[in-house]
Amino acid sequence: MTLPLRPWYDQPMLYIAESPGRGRGVFAQRQIHSGQLIERAPVIVVPAGQWEGMDRTVLFDYFFAWGEHSAIALGYGSLYNHAYQPNARFVKHFSQQVIEFYALRAIESDEEILINYNVDPGDDSPLWFHVLA
Amino acid sequence: MTLPLRPWYDQPMLYIAESPGRGRGVFAQRQIHSGQLIERAPVIVVPAGQWEGMDRTVLFDYFFAWGEHSAIALGYGSLYNHAYQPNARFVKHFSQQVIEFYALRAIESDEEILINYNVDPGDDSPLWFHVLA
Repeated sequence: MTLPLRPWYDQPMLYIAESPGRGRGVFAQRQIHSGQLIERAPVIVVPAGQWEGMDRTVLFDYFFAWGEHSAIALGYGSLYNHAYQPNARFVKHFSQQVIEFYALRAIESDEEILINYNVDPGDDSPLWFHVLA
Repeated sequence: MTLPLRPWYDQPMLYIAESPGRGRGVFAQRQIHSGQLIERAPVIVVPAGQWEGMDRTVLFDYFFAWGEHSAIALGYGSLYNHAYQPNARFVKHFSQQVIEFYALRAIESDEEILINYNVDPGDDSPLWFHVLA
């Protein structure tokens, strides 16, 4: 693990608010540039052998695949909602136990930041929940 | 829930680094004043009925009691290490699904921020793991 993970930003960039129909979501506190790093979220890795029964808990909706294991993202990493046309993407750094979130285009202040849970921003494979239009 | 949770700070205050013998920990990026709000961490509430088997996973070490339920703290809330003489305390806001962390005394830059997992900063009840001196 490469530590410390010092904050890379000079100003807070994000806030949490209610996203209609989706529960909480992550919103831009100020304008974010295309390609900009939005957040470096540490994760807790849950080994594959401990996964049993987790699909019957609320945590199932939050986990990221983490190689053969699963991970729960801290920071605001667990609160980004899904879109098939997202404005952000994420990159997993396994050795650092970190997920980085990057803007795919310019994001306006107060715009919700959305990622494609299928990882590839262009992947429109069905998900396990009903996706809002 | 009272939302949005806008960041309350002007500058980043925290970073994650390795804490010898304790894994990751949360450190002060700059001086923090006594009584100052360090972080407002959103939580994911796991209902009591979904708790079964969770004690056999790594998540057991991270959960906060949340009334009759349990909660996993996002932000850096899951990464604060324990001390019987902590320099920070936490307050749960059930309706907001948020845990606030406050400095109990002045904290220097690069000092690790520690909380008493027994909640009451003066409570020296034994914990479920070996506490480093």
